Amino acid sequence: MANPPFPVRLRVRYAETDQMGVVHHAVYPVWFEAARTELSRAVGLPYSQWEAEGALLMVTDLSCRFRKPARYDELVTVWVWVAELASRRVVFAYRVEGPDGTLLAEGETRHLLVDRHTGRPLAFSPAMREALRRQPPPDAS
Amino acid sequence: MANPPFPVRLRVRYAETDQMGVVHHAVYPVWFEAARTELSRAVGLPYSQWEAEGALLMVTDLSCRFRKPARYDELVTVWVWVAELASRRVVFAYRVEGPDGTLLAEGETRHLLVDRHTGRPLAFSPAMREALRRQPPPDAS
Amino acid sequence: MANPPFPVRLRVRYAETDQMGVVHHAVYPVWFEAARTELSRAVGLPYSQWEAEGALLMVTDLSCRFRKPARYDELVTVWVWVAELASRRVVFAYRVEGPDGTLLAEGETRHLLVDRHTGRPLAFSPAMREALRRQPPPDAS
Amino acid sequence: MANPPFPVRLRVRYAETDQMGVVHHAVYPVWFEAARTELSRAVGLPYSQWEAEGALLMVTDLSCRFRKPARYDELVTVWVWVAELASRRVVFAYRVEGPDGTLLAEGETRHLLVDRHTGRPLAFSPAMREALRRQPPPDAS
Repeated sequence: MANPPFPVRLRVRYAETDQMGVVHHAVYPVWFEAARTELSRAVGLPYSQWEAEGALLMVTDLSCRFRKPARYDELVTVWVWVAELASRRVVFAYRVEGPDGTLLAEGETRHLLVDRHTGRPLAFSPAMREALRRQPPPDAS
Repeated sequence: MANPPFPVRLRVRYAETDQMGVVHHAVYPVWFEAARTELSRAVGLPYSQWEAEGALLMVTDLSCRFRKPARYDELVTVWVWVAELASRRVVFAYRVEGPDGTLLAEGETRHLLVDRHTGRPLAFSPAMREALRRQPPPDAS
Repeated sequence: MANPPFPVRLRVRYAETDQMGVVHHAVYPVWFEAARTELSRAVGLPYSQWEAEGALLMVTDLSCRFRKPARYDELVTVWVWVAELASRRVVFAYRVEGPDGTLLAEGETRHLLVDRHTGRPLAFSPAMREALRRQPPPDAS
Repeated sequence: MANPPFPVRLRVRYAETDQMGVVHHAVYPVWFEAARTELSRAVGLPYSQWEAEGALLMVTDLSCRFRKPARYDELVTVWVWVAELASRRVVFAYRVEGPDGTLLAEGETRHLLVDRHTGRPLAFSPAMREALRRQPPPDAS
């Protein structure tokens, strides 16, 4: 593991629920992404800068296991961490917890760094590698 | 009115519902947009071509009146038409009907044509104007 | 105006952008709703409680004027306030500002209170009316 | 495999793209769900009926592998089939193809049938089992 779990708090939106009365399962990848964004900021290299510098972190694989439903207006915590890091690939892992710490979902996303203009695979720069290995502050939210 | 109402049929998705058991109100602008796309294709100038040629049709105003709820798996019809057309602006109007023709919602979007690269307002080309005035086939779906 | 503007801060998500490179216009109603939720909590009567007690605040009208685009990872502020209050209807107004206070969008939503089970219009309870008139703390986020 | 791949055609919406210029990865689970809905109708037991009769098909696991990006206004085909069927569980598999048959993504969702009111696991009824095993017509779209 390149860095320890980093907590990102999110308030469940009404629009994120479905007629089952709980959060729709396609919302979790959106939360994962919001958590990656916060982690990238917390380790000093916001993802918005990556794109500005011509690198895109494409999602190549997504998996999620749903354990318990999340509900409207709950404050959930998405723990996110770098699970694997290679020269052009990175794996992020996630654990979503409810207000009382109950496990709601677990997931993983695999990514490939590509050049924004050519679409070709790209190696992480030393600054990116260093950031992805950096230990974020215990809680920045 | 530059052209008559054009019907676009859409099947309500589960993800489009919320915990009230009906379609979430923020889904209607997405349906309006899908209907504009189909209308642009029906009149012979698909919007994907507009963007490829460097023109963006920005949304400047949105309004919607919700009358009756739409529900999961219903086949709704979005009637779309050009309500106003000026040199750089166009107004689309919409009427959403349920499976039995019941009025579910009415709306309007106002747009400004801008240059994709400079962001500056742009006049519609003769081909665009002609397309926006063309009568679409009665039902292309 | 029943209460003064209340600020709700939101971080723009990557999933909220579209291929124009800015936030998609259908995201603003979702932000408005998130802001209403926070306002209802700030004035002491969270909307989740309203629904638990059998009252639904249906959206009957939505309008939004888009002035400047919001972008990925920006911290936007949605100012929300009660613009009108009647026995069974309420109007919320919104002003979305960018990180430097620039006006991005303005909007309004009109609502009707209905009984969750019968779908019939319902009068606001004294507790609801009082909450909707209460001045929220200057900034709870 | 309980039934052969069934094709569901979808037109890519503008709102489904992100600032990378392609369809956002969280949209694929929504397409998978839309495809399940069409398959359930094609085999004679629409999912809307399942819920009306008190059974919910909860998603317990989701996985997706992204191969090539889908783009605005493309007509994609989601092939869906029942990959596994047990007494209370079912696995659907998906293959998303672009307009020319290129593989864009592959995925799988695992589901547990539960009672709508108690939330307890439920066995598929004979009618449900029969439908999930039925061969859909070659193309109903």
